[in-house]
Amino acid sequence: MKKKKLNSLEDVFDFAINNIKDQMGHITIAIGGIPKISSSNDIIGNCIQEWIPQWLEDNGLEMIANPNSQQFPDFIATLDGKEYAMEVKCWNGENSPAFDLANFDGFYRAVYDNPEMLNAKYLIFSYKPTTHGFQITNIFLKNVWEITKASKNYPIGLQVKQGSPYAIRPFPFHKHPSTSFSSRREFVEAIQSTREMFPLDNMIDPIEWLINIEERFEILTGEIL
Amino acid sequence: MKKKKLNSLEDVFDFAINNIKDQMGHITIAIGGIPKISSSNDIIGNCIQEWIPQWLEDNGLEMIANPNSQQFPDFIATLDGKEYAMEVKCWNGENSPAFDLANFDGFYRAVYDNPEMLNAKYLIFSYKPTTHGFQITNIFLKNVWEITKASKNYPIGLQVKQGSPYAIRPFPFHKHPSTSFSSRREFVEAIQSTREMFPLDNMIDPIEWLINIEERFEILTGEIL
Repeated sequence: MKKKKLNSLEDVFDFAINNIKDQMGHITIAIGGIPKISSSNDIIGNCIQEWIPQWLEDNGLEMIANPNSQQFPDFIATLDGKEYAMEVKCWNGENSPAFDLANFDGFYRAVYDNPEMLNAKYLIFSYKPTTHGFQITNIFLKNVWEITKASKNYPIGLQVKQGSPYAIRPFPFHKHPSTSFSSRREFVEAIQSTREMFPLDNMIDPIEWLINIEERFEILTGEIL
Repeated sequence: MKKKKLNSLEDVFDFAINNIKDQMGHITIAIGGIPKISSSNDIIGNCIQEWIPQWLEDNGLEMIANPNSQQFPDFIATLDGKEYAMEVKCWNGENSPAFDLANFDGFYRAVYDNPEMLNAKYLIFSYKPTTHGFQITNIFLKNVWEITKASKNYPIGLQVKQGSPYAIRPFPFHKHPSTSFSSRREFVEAIQSTREMFPLDNMIDPIEWLINIEERFEILTGEIL
């Protein structure tokens, strides 16, 4: 594997495609020197999500993990002096992607506090379990609005627990990429509509939320929301 | 490691104590031949729970995993022609034991259907994370009533989610073993009282539940509840 300076997230993506796609993986746990192979999906998913950032760091990418591992984003990556919010996700590509994109309430608040996080990039790996491990079958670099869309019952793919919005969920973007939200703004409006469906005391008012994000997103990034 | 015929769960426990206690463990994930060490608690816990049954099978214990991995019990072990319901648990011994013993509603129903499951044995491992992996620090073989007790707010250690009982939780039995429930019957009555606190439509009535379990437990096991 040749080292190459990674100057952008597109470089990171190309690097992953060139070096990891189609590769086989395996997980071994040894106790007292006796090795066994682990093959449950939970373990594979968690392990890949732990392996990828270490491997990217080995290859010169500066990544700072979020001290709160439950919070969005997973990492801040520094590329060519610029910081990027970055999430690393993976799923068993034989099923629909079932990873949580974020806790709904937490995301609603985090985006309000840091609207530039809407530009976070998702580096996503699909794998296929094999007899002795797994194979990395595909890799995606996506914006959040490219892996989400309205679901049957809600303005966005949403896991609802006992009447409250819980996790924002992706749709099978790998199969039907063209049906995602078409823009960042459409995604943000879907979050707003979802909040309106599930109002919460002491939470920022959805109208104020959007106006405020719109304004500050432009100041912070120079781009129109 | 010398093979020895395992004739009882006490044999299994002795075998684990003699061969695994104080041993170091490590988890490696390799993708495309590049190995990394995994060290998150989630992964360690899941991996140990996957390693132990494989290792016991290597050593001649017949274990049949529950096809529904979310349901109690994890395994049916056959020892000397007799079947035992068995759970394998582990936790980071530097914290309080936080593993779920069972989903409350599922357990309430399962014990009603199969009262002999009250004799299920818990083979429990505590570990300590180390720089490159973990160490198995202690091993316990327990009955369910030896790892539970009344909590501050409920008749049993209970995780409550949005007003409903969710998971039955152990207490720090490794530190204060003498404060557990003193008998199987005391444990069963605590489950009954918890159900009375959280009545559920279409669920077996708690009074009938206990009478029925009492009667059938004796028929099935020859022991008094």
